Amino acid sequence: MTAKSRSDRSANAHGLLIVNTGDGKGKTTAAMGLAMRAVGQGLGVCVIQFIKDEKGRWGERMAAEALRVEWHTMGDGFVFDPDPNSPAARLAREGWRLASDKIASGAYSLVVLDEFTYPLKFGWLDETDVLAQLASRPGHVHVAITGRDASPALIAQADLVTEMVLIKHPFERGVRAQRGIEF
Amino acid sequence: MTAKSRSDRSANAHGLLIVNTGDGKGKTTAAMGLAMRAVGQGLGVCVIQFIKDEKGRWGERMAAEALRVEWHTMGDGFVFDPDPNSPAARLAREGWRLASDKIASGAYSLVVLDEFTYPLKFGWLDETDVLAQLASRPGHVHVAITGRDASPALIAQADLVTEMVLIKHPFERGVRAQRGIEF
Repeated sequence: MTAKSRSDRSANAHGLLIVNTGDGKGKTTAAMGLAMRAVGQGLGVCVIQFIKDEKGRWGERMAAEALRVEWHTMGDGFVFDPDPNSPAARLAREGWRLASDKIASGAYSLVVLDEFTYPLKFGWLDETDVLAQLASRPGHVHVAITGRDASPALIAQADLVTEMVLIKHPFERGVRAQRGIEF
Repeated sequence: MTAKSRSDRSANAHGLLIVNTGDGKGKTTAAMGLAMRAVGQGLGVCVIQFIKDEKGRWGERMAAEALRVEWHTMGDGFVFDPDPNSPAARLAREGWRLASDKIASGAYSLVVLDEFTYPLKFGWLDETDVLAQLASRPGHVHVAITGRDASPALIAQADLVTEMVLIKHPFERGVRAQRGIEF
């Protein structure tokens, strides 16, 4: 017998690298549902939110607090500035330092990196380095990454990849984004 | 001014019919993330779970309780019996009666019908009748339906349709379903 008594840290546990990508809805919400499921099973969960600011994930943020999910907002709401010296880029690098510490600590069964494909896509982070750090994480830690345009290298390393495909969207009909549904 | 003071019941609110379908992961988890978002915004949420039994959604069920999401399990875990007189079929019809009452009451901003495509697909319910009842619901009520094989009629009536496409799955690699991630 080893000292590992928690079943989520048992030899059977194989931490998955999960990627939700594609142009459709549901990438982040599915990761949040996963967080909800894990918390409901008594597992520790940490969410690091890149790109978006507090307001952009308000509903999730409040629910996460009620569920005792640890949550860090490391985005300022500005998505479209690929400048590596922009405040957004610096915040993303700080976010990844925090995330890699949280992952390496082994203290969480699930770490969600929300919108994390964008810092990779913009070149704000060295993807090879990020993937190497993810590969060397403790064996029981699941990591879920969301965002459009997941790279081939990320997809190759991932265990579970889902593409969310938009079939029909209400904005096409002129319906505005609504509180509790879109944010 | 009308008596409708809650912004989620304002004239601007347009209750969406949301469908998460496809063979990939994330259909239910995205709906749960939506529930989490809505609850976090202070909106009332009700989940009616078809097909699966308690055990099949244990993590979500526990988290929903913590979030004060109303939850009804109307499945017995047996998916593959299309017999309209089976216990599963009768339970699904009872589930729809409950769901349509909850939706019509207007007391919830979001009603999730988890795995609801299957009772429709199996012919346990009259789809034309179900779609008519959904169409006549109070204007502020969002309804999210999950499950594979959403019918063309359901997709036609829906406002927001996402197809979850499986790109890569760990079961292909022989990794077993894991607590907190798969259930």
